[in-house]
Amino acid sequence: MGSKWETLVADKRKRQTDSIPKEWLISLPSEDCLDVTNVPNECGILTAKELEITELDDVDALLLNLASGKWSSVEVTTAYCKRAFIAQQLTNCLTEIFVERALKRAKELDEHLRKIGKVAGPLHGLPVSLKDQIQVKGLEATLGYASWVGKYSDRDAVIVQILLEAGAVPFVKTNVPQTMIWAETNNLLFGRTVNPHNRKLTAGGSSGGEGALLAMKGSPLGVGTDVGGSVRIPAGFVGIYSLRPSYNRVPYAGAVTTTTEGEESNPTVLGPMSRSLSGIKAFMKVVTAAKPWDRDPLAIKKEWDSDAYALADHGGEGGKNLVFAVMWDNGQIVPHPPVRRALEETKAALIAAGHKVIDWAPFPYERLGKNLERIWLAAGTKFIHDIVAESGEPILPTMGLNPLANGGREFQEGISAYELRQLHQEKQALKEAHLVHWQETAQLTGTGRAVDAIICPMAPGAAPLHGTNDEAYKSFYTSVLSCLNYVAAVFPVTTVDPKLDVRNAPHQFYNKKDQAMFQAYDPEIFKGAPIALQLVGRTLEEEAVIAMTEVVDKALKEYKESKSKL
Amino acid sequence: MGSKWETLVADKRKRQTDSIPKEWLISLPSEDCLDVTNVPNECGILTAKELEITELDDVDALLLNLASGKWSSVEVTTAYCKRAFIAQQLTNCLTEIFVERALKRAKELDEHLRKIGKVAGPLHGLPVSLKDQIQVKGLEATLGYASWVGKYSDRDAVIVQILLEAGAVPFVKTNVPQTMIWAETNNLLFGRTVNPHNRKLTAGGSSGGEGALLAMKGSPLGVGTDVGGSVRIPAGFVGIYSLRPSYNRVPYAGAVTTTTEGEESNPTVLGPMSRSLSGIKAFMKVVTAAKPWDRDPLAIKKEWDSDAYALADHGGEGGKNLVFAVMWDNGQIVPHPPVRRALEETKAALIAAGHKVIDWAPFPYERLGKNLERIWLAAGTKFIHDIVAESGEPILPTMGLNPLANGGREFQEGISAYELRQLHQEKQALKEAHLVHWQETAQLTGTGRAVDAIICPMAPGAAPLHGTNDEAYKSFYTSVLSCLNYVAAVFPVTTVDPKLDVRNAPHQFYNKKDQAMFQAYDPEIFKGAPIALQLVGRTLEEEAVIAMTEVVDKALKEYKESKSKL
Repeated sequence: MGSKWETLVADKRKRQTDSIPKEWLISLPSEDCLDVTNVPNECGILTAKELEITELDDVDALLLNLASGKWSSVEVTTAYCKRAFIAQQLTNCLTEIFVERALKRAKELDEHLRKIGKVAGPLHGLPVSLKDQIQVKGLEATLGYASWVGKYSDRDAVIVQILLEAGAVPFVKTNVPQTMIWAETNNLLFGRTVNPHNRKLTAGGSSGGEGALLAMKGSPLGVGTDVGGSVRIPAGFVGIYSLRPSYNRVPYAGAVTTTTEGEESNPTVLGPMSRSLSGIKAFMKVVTAAKPWDRDPLAIKKEWDSDAYALADHGGEGGKNLVFAVMWDNGQIVPHPPVRRALEETKAALIAAGHKVIDWAPFPYERLGKNLERIWLAAGTKFIHDIVAESGEPILPTMGLNPLANGGREFQEGISAYELRQLHQEKQALKEAHLVHWQETAQLTGTGRAVDAIICPMAPGAAPLHGTNDEAYKSFYTSVLSCLNYVAAVFPVTTVDPKLDVRNAPHQFYNKKDQAMFQAYDPEIFKGAPIALQLVGRTLEEEAVIAMTEVVDKALKEYKESKSKL
Repeated sequence: MGSKWETLVADKRKRQTDSIPKEWLISLPSEDCLDVTNVPNECGILTAKELEITELDDVDALLLNLASGKWSSVEVTTAYCKRAFIAQQLTNCLTEIFVERALKRAKELDEHLRKIGKVAGPLHGLPVSLKDQIQVKGLEATLGYASWVGKYSDRDAVIVQILLEAGAVPFVKTNVPQTMIWAETNNLLFGRTVNPHNRKLTAGGSSGGEGALLAMKGSPLGVGTDVGGSVRIPAGFVGIYSLRPSYNRVPYAGAVTTTTEGEESNPTVLGPMSRSLSGIKAFMKVVTAAKPWDRDPLAIKKEWDSDAYALADHGGEGGKNLVFAVMWDNGQIVPHPPVRRALEETKAALIAAGHKVIDWAPFPYERLGKNLERIWLAAGTKFIHDIVAESGEPILPTMGLNPLANGGREFQEGISAYELRQLHQEKQALKEAHLVHWQETAQLTGTGRAVDAIICPMAPGAAPLHGTNDEAYKSFYTSVLSCLNYVAAVFPVTTVDPKLDVRNAPHQFYNKKDQAMFQAYDPEIFKGAPIALQLVGRTLEEEAVIAMTEVVDKALKEYKESKSKL
């Protein structure tokens, strides 16, 4: 007989395994098989039609097939359930599995369409996956804590209410790291989620379960959370799209957290993750149309703005003659060769598409990043120790930024409210300085406007090996944007190619982390791993950021096509 | 020779007195003369035209006269400068006086209009007064601290930039209480500001200088700040209009503060104060049109919404068939008879105008108010002691809510960032509960909508005697709305009439403060003092709140007219 936490883990894992129908179990590939993204096509579990359904990346096209009745919701939900369970067996990405509930709902939606002749909502019949902390009534929301096994939600999160009203079909919840503030996904309750493109690499975090599931095509649309990069890092590391919206553009009420509970200075945001930008856009349109401010007091009263999506604030030509600034590095960590190449290809593609590209001037991002970390750590770590103490589970050792890893896993005292206010003032001054910095680019664009968006790395390299995602995260490529409350979309650009992305000669290092990051690059380790970038717009520019990311995405596709023809 | 602070005060006061032209000094009325609002008309300083200019309450009409060239900006500015200095001599409402700078600018604007034939902006030629903490380049922003004498601003606040670009003419800054968190206006540097309707009564605070100046018709439009009622309390106590906008709808960057520096949970907001609702509306339209988010990183990207102003979210009939809920009391302090009468008259006026009025159900407002106070006090009081220590000035004893007054004027320790986060969580739960409370009124309105707005007291009574504004403030009528981040407009309804507003028999008291408030009512003391109410809409509903306040204001005027005809 094990300790309390081991008993809880055994119970939860058994219930989880039992929730997967036996006929959907696959024979597992050997551990040497690192890229498992093709297993669903080969394992024989999915029918040809189910493969066709799940291989369709474009959420708009999928919604059209559902709305037209070409594919029933039961068919689509079944296909995605099967593929999600295959993903689970290969990457360990799921937490809660509620296939029966999902299929019952899919059936009701099919009947609705048949009887009424109209869709139940704009997301009619669409399976949607949810990061574990998003509460669904009657399901557990453990966040990977053994201590929280058996903690059933008595409400749907506001975002779940909205998705249900829009006709979506929630069907699984996905894995998170212990404590949530960690750019890998591992906990004692569910274990580690791995990257489907290379199982030796992390899927990122904290929305790593979503990332792995979506990259396996085990869900068409997922909802993650982001406080310093948590929808962006996993999306980038597995090669899909995601959006970090502004604080409270998407209602957060009813999502559980631990480390950032009551942290108002840099609140966690919900954000969509998908294999298509149409999925990101569909999510944002549904959420803003649902008037979330009538349910979440913090949700910002701002409907979807079609003019903003038509880029009215960016020249008004619907995405012609934009000016982008490329941040080649952030003055902290020089990106690995494949990231540099991604930036260069994107620049070339944008110029080929008729846009202008300038260099983003240096800014003291380290000060912003450090400020944010200190605000995160302000309350100390006692409350995490309290949670794990309930079951006696240990705190995991490899935690990147996690407060429990820095300076060992010992208890850390917090600071006073007075000291916290000093940090807020420092942050405000830095934010004002950054706004001036951005506005001053108006002198360089030739359009009379400041640059329309920044293109920058999502991380300085591809997904790192398990347990090593410290430097990448600490490079501040994602977290400072949270601190600035800018809208950031992640889009995939390329994959690591050992032929193209050879090791560089050492540069003059900014600091020891930069040196360590330089030394960590090995084209053979990262071969084939996705490389993504961020497109960064200003606060509350969700519509424009989506539109501009569509512009960049299209330019990249055309550029690659034209190059392949040469 | 006095102490350091006394020397600083003497220097500052001499410079202030010297900045008023000698020919604009009046012979002061006796101390028995309590209502001084008519002195400007009688003192012989203003010409007939200057009286005509300053007696015009409607800012839109004033702007029209300026734009048409009927009145030059120099004429209007001169008239308001003269009247402001009369107000200063009677109520002690000003801090910085910059008449030369204002007249120079007015002259330039007149020349612009003459040469170009077009206004320089929507506020062309309009004199505007600013609460002391709003920085104007080259002027002091002492906030009434002797320690800060000689502290000249090296920048214009963003709101000043916007007002200047819109063609306004800033001409004076106005008085504030020591420490700013105090619902009266008194400090050692400038002294006490009194209520022009009755100089024995407070002008309220913290924007009390603005209140007294505007009620004296010494400015057509003022900018105050509000963290718990600071534009609303003075506006209500002197009988003018004001608006408490949502956090960061109006850019705050470049305004100085002390007690709330770095306080992000309930940030201070800027808000307009005026004798006309057209002044409030003109200000909000100018501010939102100026894209403040390009200058203040916290300013919310949300332009003036004409649909919202047309009440699209409130039945879409442009203000017909609205449903209001009256909060007769907040379960803490029963309002004095004239406030009750103001509520009853407003209800009758709204019903007469075809609207529906229901009762607002009780809510535990005390919990919200206490939560807010604890968040305010979170950082303790050391920083205030540090400021006054620079000059050795004492801390004033009668401070209402002020942290330094509660439990004596001793140093108070703050709480930890961890404890602060617990308060944030409690606040969030209360805010969610209040949103549900509001949404549930949809069952009572008959419109399918929740109530369109709440009508509630601004304070439980008229402006109290100097040094006694504790209970009124602590009644939470204004502060809980800040905590909820609701938009609240203050509008004048009536004045205390000893014949109508007789003392009530004692009711069953909610608590000791309620009993004390009951006992403090004396119709003879408050005779003639203004009574105002608040119209409360939801977060980011500035446009709708202005429109609905226009509806209520019109209904009240029509109701009074019809009653006077009987």
